[in-house]
Amino acid sequence: MTGGKWRVTASRTVVKDRWIDLRADTCVTPGGHVLDPFYVLAYPDWVHVLALTGDDRIVMVRQYRHAAGEHVLELPGGAMDPADADPSQAAARELAEETAYTAASFGHICSQWPNPATHANKVHFYRAIDPAAAGTQKLDAGEDGLTVRLVPVEEVLRGLRGDWTMQSMHVSAILLGLADCGRISF
Amino acid sequence: MTGGKWRVTASRTVVKDRWIDLRADTCVTPGGHVLDPFYVLAYPDWVHVLALTGDDRIVMVRQYRHAAGEHVLELPGGAMDPADADPSQAAARELAEETAYTAASFGHICSQWPNPATHANKVHFYRAIDPAAAGTQKLDAGEDGLTVRLVPVEEVLRGLRGDWTMQSMHVSAILLGLADCGRISF
Repeated sequence: MTGGKWRVTASRTVVKDRWIDLRADTCVTPGGHVLDPFYVLAYPDWVHVLALTGDDRIVMVRQYRHAAGEHVLELPGGAMDPADADPSQAAARELAEETAYTAASFGHICSQWPNPATHANKVHFYRAIDPAAAGTQKLDAGEDGLTVRLVPVEEVLRGLRGDWTMQSMHVSAILLGLADCGRISF
Repeated sequence: MTGGKWRVTASRTVVKDRWIDLRADTCVTPGGHVLDPFYVLAYPDWVHVLALTGDDRIVMVRQYRHAAGEHVLELPGGAMDPADADPSQAAARELAEETAYTAASFGHICSQWPNPATHANKVHFYRAIDPAAAGTQKLDAGEDGLTVRLVPVEEVLRGLRGDWTMQSMHVSAILLGLADCGRISF
């Protein structure tokens, strides 16, 4: 009974457009339990970028997040476009669009599940190697008011362990990315 | 134009039942952009528990996650019930139900946004103080096949920096929880 996948006996689309793709599956577990409906959100894969400057600051963005109803300090990132050849190209594009920073190359930190119970997609974390300010931002309508912040690493580490409410994917990317480049160790 | 919230001029429920609560808002940004629809998922708050045993192992669960289509190694946790007095009580309940471990008390590590763009809820991370095996599991139908694993901290740290694909909220909780109890430092 352990180790097997669920069997999908029916599946219907609840809502699907440019922004969301929600389906309701009828599932049967290896133990014979029927789960109906079981909702699955299909998104493109996401990318988040840790850009650590030569003076030990992280290139971050502060923007309004409507579901939370608050402004949140985040890493640059977003959804892969069909035109992105691979996640590293998406990382470069998102970093440039949101912050006007570029980098000679991008190192893959790791990939994770945003939420494997409900989301079918993965999130890929990249580290910008030697980031530098260049060009201008190209913001979407939903990024109206997004501001770029260069935040010292020590301040970020204090904040995420203290009273900042951050997004879990970004915290994970920051800690693993800083470990990857030897800035912290664990 | 920066710093303001979006104005919601209309809102409709797309689907709402025991499992999901999805609404579509019509939003106007401070800069005057109209975003329609903007989807918001309302869930109860979630809790995840880091239970570190006296012999340096983390009490984890391995279970099938249908959206991802894979078995994933995770921390115990779940959604708050209306009957839970507070998130720490939810943490104790979820730990006991999924793993049959209990603890004398639970320390709050921190709270984060699962995804403040799309999810209105928060996730609360707790640390079980002196966890011990007691009682029996009480699994839901969707947890059919869930197995408890006691995984050495070193193996978890290697895995999450290596080739394990984990869930971002759990990675964040593990690293911040281990830092909180002095097991790692950064």
